[in-house]
Amino acid sequence: MSQAGDAIGALVTQLSRLPGIGERTATRLAFFFLSGPPDLPEALAAALIGVKTRVRRCSCCGNVTEADPCRICASATRDRSMICVVEGPSDVVALERTGEFRGTYHVLNGLLRPLDGVGPDALNLASLVRRIGTEPITEVVVATNPSVEGEATAVYIRNILGVVGVKVSRIASGIPIGGELEYADRATLGRALTGRQTMS
Amino acid sequence: MSQAGDAIGALVTQLSRLPGIGERTATRLAFFFLSGPPDLPEALAAALIGVKTRVRRCSCCGNVTEADPCRICASATRDRSMICVVEGPSDVVALERTGEFRGTYHVLNGLLRPLDGVGPDALNLASLVRRIGTEPITEVVVATNPSVEGEATAVYIRNILGVVGVKVSRIASGIPIGGELEYADRATLGRALTGRQTMS
Repeated sequence: MSQAGDAIGALVTQLSRLPGIGERTATRLAFFFLSGPPDLPEALAAALIGVKTRVRRCSCCGNVTEADPCRICASATRDRSMICVVEGPSDVVALERTGEFRGTYHVLNGLLRPLDGVGPDALNLASLVRRIGTEPITEVVVATNPSVEGEATAVYIRNILGVVGVKVSRIASGIPIGGELEYADRATLGRALTGRQTMS
Repeated sequence: MSQAGDAIGALVTQLSRLPGIGERTATRLAFFFLSGPPDLPEALAAALIGVKTRVRRCSCCGNVTEADPCRICASATRDRSMICVVEGPSDVVALERTGEFRGTYHVLNGLLRPLDGVGPDALNLASLVRRIGTEPITEVVVATNPSVEGEATAVYIRNILGVVGVKVSRIASGIPIGGELEYADRATLGRALTGRQTMS
């Protein structure tokens, strides 16, 4: 990048810090900022500063929000008897997109990763236990990813909430809709079998 | 994005304007700005503003630069007898990476696209003709992409520079190094044949 100058090099460096963006893509994007829509660099810069200054955590569920409590926690139409526990804010977006869940959420902002030193205290767990005690909750749906960390976190949550006496459920794993058994990995296929449901 | 608030929605909108970034990737990136390195939003915003305010066009070759003339045009060690004509600044980066070219560049900042109303006047062509008249140039290497627009632009440049009496050459097209004839498209393979060179 020597012939392009330090400003472009600095932009490439910052863009390269984004997940899934290598130096080649970062360079292509940096040149797009120069030759693309003239307002884009400033508009994106303003949006970045806006997120940095205006977005915080909901004091109830831990999701990202501009108003506290967030719109879901403040909503009068959500089902207060169910909490769906997720790893991060993007999981809330994905679940809301389905339109299948009318309860509220609880965002852990991470998963247990003991090997990396991430224990229960690093997650948004204490406030979950507090909510169970103060809100009329009958079921907690643990919707962490079906990964090693997601499963371990789900088991941990079931253990601590089992003491409180609330029902804890886990989202189903199995063959994705449109997927093929032939190409499913053994663990997924095994889970699809053990998780089979009676057809009515 | 309704539950995430306007600031995140605005960031997703701006990120979606980037080439190759759809709404899903933009959403993933937006959440990374919230949960990733705390300094990243501001650092990227500053880099964007830096590019916007400090980068301009070299008055000689049209490449992006902070100093005018750019480092290549200002360099005492470049071969002044050859100009390589390219579509955009990223092509200069790619060619410099090869280390094969010691001449100077001329950046068109586009290609002829008559159907979209992009004619010769929209490209950085007048200054190319001016350079031929004032610099000791003996050869112009046209390194536009081997696309329809790139070929048409190359032919146009050969025609206008043919009048001036300077040698105009075209970069070679053919099978990429490491590629296989079996998988090459007909046009590429045809060009590899007609562009064959005597082995010495």
